[in-house]
Amino acid sequence: MQARVSFITLGVGDVARSRRFYEALGFTASPASQDAITFFDLGGIVLSLFGRAALAEDVGVPVSEPGFSGISLAHNVNSESEVDEVLREAVAAGAKLLKPGQKVFWGGYSGYFADPDGHLWEVAHNPFVSLDANGRIILEASAP
Amino acid sequence: MQARVSFITLGVGDVARSRRFYEALGFTASPASQDAITFFDLGGIVLSLFGRAALAEDVGVPVSEPGFSGISLAHNVNSESEVDEVLREAVAAGAKLLKPGQKVFWGGYSGYFADPDGHLWEVAHNPFVSLDANGRIILEASAP
Repeated sequence: MQARVSFITLGVGDVARSRRFYEALGFTASPASQDAITFFDLGGIVLSLFGRAALAEDVGVPVSEPGFSGISLAHNVNSESEVDEVLREAVAAGAKLLKPGQKVFWGGYSGYFADPDGHLWEVAHNPFVSLDANGRIILEASAP
Repeated sequence: MQARVSFITLGVGDVARSRRFYEALGFTASPASQDAITFFDLGGIVLSLFGRAALAEDVGVPVSEPGFSGISLAHNVNSESEVDEVLREAVAAGAKLLKPGQKVFWGGYSGYFADPDGHLWEVAHNPFVSLDANGRIILEASAP
């Protein structure tokens, strides 16, 4: 298996509500989106919003109450002030602020917000990793 | 906020065990990895393995029992037979097969496996999307 992820699918309670949230955050829905599923092209990888119960049914697992998903998505930016700015944008779009931007033990600066279904996003500045012109991570051996 | 994901972090019960699982699947751990965290460079995006309790603590949310995470990661390939092959590789590496490869309602062919902590991976062939030479998704307006 190649080391690749093609889609990240978030199970949500209301696809239209979640689509509005991510659009308010600045994401543009793909024309390939349908009522039951929204696609956001992240550049070679796709973020999908799909009904939580439908996703569980698709996988064939019981749909339990949302608890701690055990997964976070991080959005890295180039400065501490940009972390604060993105967190403010997220809250303005309807996110719940879980942790304001702050210096963290690994030497960076980060905060967390939850989307309308509680999916966890970290907004981080990591001085040990670089972002290329397209915002793609350049992971170096010296990164913590 | 730009439409980007920088890191996908999976909270796991035992970082070393999960690292061995993903290495057995064919992923190569970055030299930036440490005992407490493993990084896999997916090409501009990083898959991290981090302790589940440590991740919950980092976010500042209670660490509940793993239930349905509400998130799946998809690994798209170019043919139905490749789906079956990757599912076999995953099982050989210690994954639990949740759904064997099969034709699915949206016109493709897919199956699911769970990693040692229950994180959900779909292996899919979608005849409506293309993969570039690096395996990156090309999302077209006509994709379902």
